[in-house]
Amino acid sequence: MNFTVAQLNYHIGNFSGNKDLICKAIRKAKEAGSDLIIFSELCIPGYPPLDLLDRLDFIEKCEQTVQEIASECTGIAAIVGSPTLNKKPEGKKLFNSALLLSEGKVIFSVNKALLPTYDIFDEYRYFEPEKQFSVFLFKGLRLAITICEDLWDEQPFDNEFEKARLYTVSPMEELARQNPDIIINIAASPFSYTKIEAKKNIFISKALKYKIPVISVNQTGANTELIFEGASVLVNENGEIFNHLPFFEEAVETFSFDDIKSGTISGKDTRPDPISLIYKALVTGLHDYFTKTGLKTSIIGLSGGIDSAICLCLAVDALGNENVRALLMPSRYSSEHSVSDAIVLAKSLRVRYDIINIEKPFNAFEDDLANVFEGMSTDVTEENIQARVRAILLMAVSNKYGCIVLNTSNKSEAAVGYGTLYGDMAGGLSVIGDVYKTDVYRLADFINRDSQIIPENIIRKLPSAELRPDQFDTDSLPDYNILDSILYQYIELQKPASRIISEGGDKETVLKVIRMIDFNEYKRYQAPPVLRISSKAFGAGRRMPLVARY
Amino acid sequence: MNFTVAQLNYHIGNFSGNKDLICKAIRKAKEAGSDLIIFSELCIPGYPPLDLLDRLDFIEKCEQTVQEIASECTGIAAIVGSPTLNKKPEGKKLFNSALLLSEGKVIFSVNKALLPTYDIFDEYRYFEPEKQFSVFLFKGLRLAITICEDLWDEQPFDNEFEKARLYTVSPMEELARQNPDIIINIAASPFSYTKIEAKKNIFISKALKYKIPVISVNQTGANTELIFEGASVLVNENGEIFNHLPFFEEAVETFSFDDIKSGTISGKDTRPDPISLIYKALVTGLHDYFTKTGLKTSIIGLSGGIDSAICLCLAVDALGNENVRALLMPSRYSSEHSVSDAIVLAKSLRVRYDIINIEKPFNAFEDDLANVFEGMSTDVTEENIQARVRAILLMAVSNKYGCIVLNTSNKSEAAVGYGTLYGDMAGGLSVIGDVYKTDVYRLADFINRDSQIIPENIIRKLPSAELRPDQFDTDSLPDYNILDSILYQYIELQKPASRIISEGGDKETVLKVIRMIDFNEYKRYQAPPVLRISSKAFGAGRRMPLVARY
Repeated sequence: MNFTVAQLNYHIGNFSGNKDLICKAIRKAKEAGSDLIIFSELCIPGYPPLDLLDRLDFIEKCEQTVQEIASECTGIAAIVGSPTLNKKPEGKKLFNSALLLSEGKVIFSVNKALLPTYDIFDEYRYFEPEKQFSVFLFKGLRLAITICEDLWDEQPFDNEFEKARLYTVSPMEELARQNPDIIINIAASPFSYTKIEAKKNIFISKALKYKIPVISVNQTGANTELIFEGASVLVNENGEIFNHLPFFEEAVETFSFDDIKSGTISGKDTRPDPISLIYKALVTGLHDYFTKTGLKTSIIGLSGGIDSAICLCLAVDALGNENVRALLMPSRYSSEHSVSDAIVLAKSLRVRYDIINIEKPFNAFEDDLANVFEGMSTDVTEENIQARVRAILLMAVSNKYGCIVLNTSNKSEAAVGYGTLYGDMAGGLSVIGDVYKTDVYRLADFINRDSQIIPENIIRKLPSAELRPDQFDTDSLPDYNILDSILYQYIELQKPASRIISEGGDKETVLKVIRMIDFNEYKRYQAPPVLRISSKAFGAGRRMPLVARY
Repeated sequence: MNFTVAQLNYHIGNFSGNKDLICKAIRKAKEAGSDLIIFSELCIPGYPPLDLLDRLDFIEKCEQTVQEIASECTGIAAIVGSPTLNKKPEGKKLFNSALLLSEGKVIFSVNKALLPTYDIFDEYRYFEPEKQFSVFLFKGLRLAITICEDLWDEQPFDNEFEKARLYTVSPMEELARQNPDIIINIAASPFSYTKIEAKKNIFISKALKYKIPVISVNQTGANTELIFEGASVLVNENGEIFNHLPFFEEAVETFSFDDIKSGTISGKDTRPDPISLIYKALVTGLHDYFTKTGLKTSIIGLSGGIDSAICLCLAVDALGNENVRALLMPSRYSSEHSVSDAIVLAKSLRVRYDIINIEKPFNAFEDDLANVFEGMSTDVTEENIQARVRAILLMAVSNKYGCIVLNTSNKSEAAVGYGTLYGDMAGGLSVIGDVYKTDVYRLADFINRDSQIIPENIIRKLPSAELRPDQFDTDSLPDYNILDSILYQYIELQKPASRIISEGGDKETVLKVIRMIDFNEYKRYQAPPVLRISSKAFGAGRRMPLVARY
């Protein structure tokens, strides 16, 4: 009995594309002598389909695609993930299902019981939870088929206030009573750099608890914010990693049941450095945003600072240097090295760059506003005008040449609102909006690991927005080491201020930072989608009321 | 036995403010000889608290406030809504509870069973559903206390694909076995102009079914996008409306059980015109956004068109003319009447206005970009620059004077992407982003019902963005009557294209409009929050994948 793990990159709503991908893998598995090929959760529509699931025609397209794939399953069976209609008169209209296809038919189906509804997940918005569980006898093996969260009934959360047991049922506990021979878990589990080990441990703990092997199948690739790392894992009945598929790559691999059951580790349980994974995740996120929207080219405002430098390197890796252009937009406040450092970088990456000085439009705005602003002193208004003039220039080139503006704000800035709405906060996609500034430096070191790609000058200079003379980030913010530690505790771990302070944070600093975070919800509301690499990114996974007084 | 209905306007996270409001109502009810005062769902933290519920300190603040209010309940009892901790080791960490307070203590509590998780609701994100139900004997009456959706087990949806029975349990059916004397329903049910009758009918149908009276208590006021209409209703045991509280106003009224039970209608069951309710809803939304964020003044870009005219009228009504200013920003393409019509309106509303011509900065951008754009022809790029120059000017005045830019895009434009990101799509709050263009005209008629406030010229002129010579909306869009009908079917009713066509829509037009809607998801992703008046507004209630190919 041979199993094939198909770790593929699906595209939401692209039924013909997903079908082609799946059928190609089925043919490959057949050639490898496989009995059962396993695809990931909701592979038919792509994940997450969000409110497309509210459309009957979308569901009918899923059903039709499943039928077409079933008819390809001759001499081999396949498990695919798809929404299916809940035929009962009561409850949500859909199930999140795993369908076992064989010889043109759906011969067995399982519905997801534990529906993640937290952070970026909204599954109870669409799906009715299953309450009945049964294993399926397939070629002499009793399969316990589970869908992602169904195995996560004891998952650890970053936020300690979350319950260790979020659900009142344990699907695997129910299935275990029917003496399964193997656990199959199909997932669409997005990347978070803090969860790599925790995810693996879930499969290990289930293998150990039930003394049977586990095959997990995750998808790879990205859909807007969500990046899936693949890294599908096979755990033997002793709870040891037998094998795992690569991070952020498609792979279709076939294994015998005997190997999965008791095979031992073959040097493949690598523990990659989180920064290298974050780098790969961001390149994947960028690459797939462009390929899946059918876009090709991008533009980045290159300031001479480290954030835009990192984004340029990532974009060149993801899209190719011929598809990335840079715009340098100096002002009266730009230091000389800003322009020269940016040029060195653009040249070394062989990226087309243009230089447009923002003085003329900036002066025109000052003239235009002189009457209305009479008697008022210069303040942040004028700084914002500069940032917004740059956004107009970037968007103009974007409109004229069809290239997408990549936003270069980091998570630390976004958190405290150190950015201008419709200015440096503009862009089609935020590349490093989930990367704290201290990790931006780590990414720079990673990019420079073999040779100096990012000039030392860019890395070493004091961070500055250069919107007024001698301005530095530290004028209005604490050191990034301190800032990022507070941000992580407040945003990812959701610790109350009092706790951050009692655990050593400086009271005045902590309260100031938290006030800035809370006050700037309105800015983030209008920010572009952010490539997510953490357990709590800004965007759909973090929903804050704008008018709250808290 | 006397009941008091307290229909109040709560502020999210403003515990002391909410407590003061509640305690004042308790004192008033005591003076009126009430035995039980009933407040609305989650009145303690305000609704919707969203991810503030993930913070332990926020929940502790709720508990503390409940205790403080309980100690005010001497000689009177109160029902308040609050999140409470789920003490069981399993399940979500919170319940959405109704707490009966008396003589310093919580003497009874009920947890919500049916947790709306669709559209703008995410309650299963936070709360564990209750599975046990019991009535409470209070002063000789058996109270069936339910929380909002708990009575909505047979609710009608606009989208026919939704299930008529979304839930697998009916809390009221369970409670009915315990022979209650009265149904109490506490709600935080936001306004939708299509749901006014449907909501009332839910209470009528339950009264008829169980032959007992119903008291429903809704909140009023707005929290960012969500506007609550109040309109708490009392239905007698014969299913007749005995009384209801006003729309969009606070009210605290006391009634005897006998009156509620069998009192008959006293001419109070008015059916207000939907447009007048939409008008009041928008004024409420605007007013509360400013008072709850502590802001005072606003600015509107006044184009001479109907959309900005309507927004100016609404803002003046909500904030007072002294807190609204207008900016007229003509260009070479502005018709003469654009400026003169706008001035007439601003003068008649006694609103301060300034005029800034956008030519200078527009020319500066053209000059700056001449090199980069060499050999390229003029296109939408230049139109977008004009829109973005206007946004910079508005935001500059906003930054300098601390006034909030009100966005004036309507729902029809937002739907088809007829607007410029970081241009006319900018603003802190979208006033009419949930109002179709055809309803914008109805609002104008409503505003002009007694006297000509909006000049006839503004109403009669052909809609135009005035971004190039002789440009009219109908150059690129169908007539608004046709457009809005397609939009409503696709967005609110979620009908597939094939159905809209088979029911009479012109195939080419329908497909073109739907392509425009789908293509422009990326623009709406970065739009400001939209005051919601329909059953499906853009924003948090409509979640679409940006990279979908469907």
